[in-house]
Amino acid sequence: MADKKAIVLLSGGLDSATTLAIACDEGFRCCALTFRYGQRHECEVAAAQKVAKSVGAVEHRIIDIDLAAFGGSALTDPAIQVPKDRVDLDGGGVIPPTYVPARNTIFLSYALAWAEVLGAFDIFIGVNSTDYSGYPDCRAEFIESFEKTANLATAAAIQGAGGYRIHTPIIEMTKGQIITTGTKLGVDYSLTHSCYDPDEAGRSCRRCDSCRLRLKGFAEAGLEDPIEYVEA
Amino acid sequence: MADKKAIVLLSGGLDSATTLAIACDEGFRCCALTFRYGQRHECEVAAAQKVAKSVGAVEHRIIDIDLAAFGGSALTDPAIQVPKDRVDLDGGGVIPPTYVPARNTIFLSYALAWAEVLGAFDIFIGVNSTDYSGYPDCRAEFIESFEKTANLATAAAIQGAGGYRIHTPIIEMTKGQIITTGTKLGVDYSLTHSCYDPDEAGRSCRRCDSCRLRLKGFAEAGLEDPIEYVEA
Repeated sequence: MADKKAIVLLSGGLDSATTLAIACDEGFRCCALTFRYGQRHECEVAAAQKVAKSVGAVEHRIIDIDLAAFGGSALTDPAIQVPKDRVDLDGGGVIPPTYVPARNTIFLSYALAWAEVLGAFDIFIGVNSTDYSGYPDCRAEFIESFEKTANLATAAAIQGAGGYRIHTPIIEMTKGQIITTGTKLGVDYSLTHSCYDPDEAGRSCRRCDSCRLRLKGFAEAGLEDPIEYVEA
Repeated sequence: MADKKAIVLLSGGLDSATTLAIACDEGFRCCALTFRYGQRHECEVAAAQKVAKSVGAVEHRIIDIDLAAFGGSALTDPAIQVPKDRVDLDGGGVIPPTYVPARNTIFLSYALAWAEVLGAFDIFIGVNSTDYSGYPDCRAEFIESFEKTANLATAAAIQGAGGYRIHTPIIEMTKGQIITTGTKLGVDYSLTHSCYDPDEAGRSCRRCDSCRLRLKGFAEAGLEDPIEYVEA
């Protein structure tokens, strides 16, 4: 186990930071993978760098991918507004404009490519279906299907070298449980970034879905969120 | 049908050129998608541009993706040699070093992202399992699994807007049948490029798997290959 590598998708948010801490705690040598994908702001990537170092990834790669070329999301297209103060944070069957088309499929495909090159068979992704904001590619049925596809897509599928496993350790946790778990594992949440629409100083907006889920989570965990927000 | 868009993965080789011609012939308005993925040479991308125009794609996007960041393939890493004069062209259970880890998974994921933005549900890919050179991600079972994953990954999966279909019109054809089909549909194969290891003038090497499968196909079809090769 001491030599077993895992790829961990790391966005710089609190879900993926906690996922990385869990993977490290399970004994994997963690190779963190972050995407610069035409997000409106660079806070996320900067946070991912700090988190990777702080939590103890053995390697961290940042890959440029051009999702903005297709558009279709408030996170990659400045013409689409990030919604504020939404009532239905669990989605309620509606997919918010912050959904990035096929994003997790693309992210997992890259993770699979890197895993195949490294000879790793474990991929961690911090998807979460409780507080999931209505994204289709955060659900267990999607992840299970991708795992099957991965096991047909790769050289190992023909050579019988082993099976890929997509780990989703926080998929059934509430935001509060995620924060409690990460805190026990020593995650420094002051290094993480969640806001979809920070101001120029990098302060979180408090009102987008991501800020609201985060604040709700810290409240549930009975902890203070250590990041900086704009004035209420 | 006149308005129905399809995404067609287009490499610039003869398989994808034929696939594009088939998709156009079926009445789709074809949006061609090509990747500049750290291949050793640019011939493929230049060929894709000519083919897209010649066959009649309504749109053509070229996306830069950095597969060379991971390495692990003779097509993206100059330190790995392209094999020449291989005996077992059908793979024989061995995956050649020209295999690019998880490449088709990544390509299909991007196609899915673009399809989702365009509201298209049809994706064409020119994989071929008869003369397939031993790549795991060219097999029908992989494609079927990806299609299932796509239908769980996307907004349409939740909204019930429709099902994605991955079309593989040439998957069971021999190279000779592909060339015969494309020729009937008016594909100009002089615009295509197949060689893994062309010389500086862009002439094909005649000896890599891709050249050998191509030459075998033209021989089967009883046609002359119109591209330029180095002297035998």
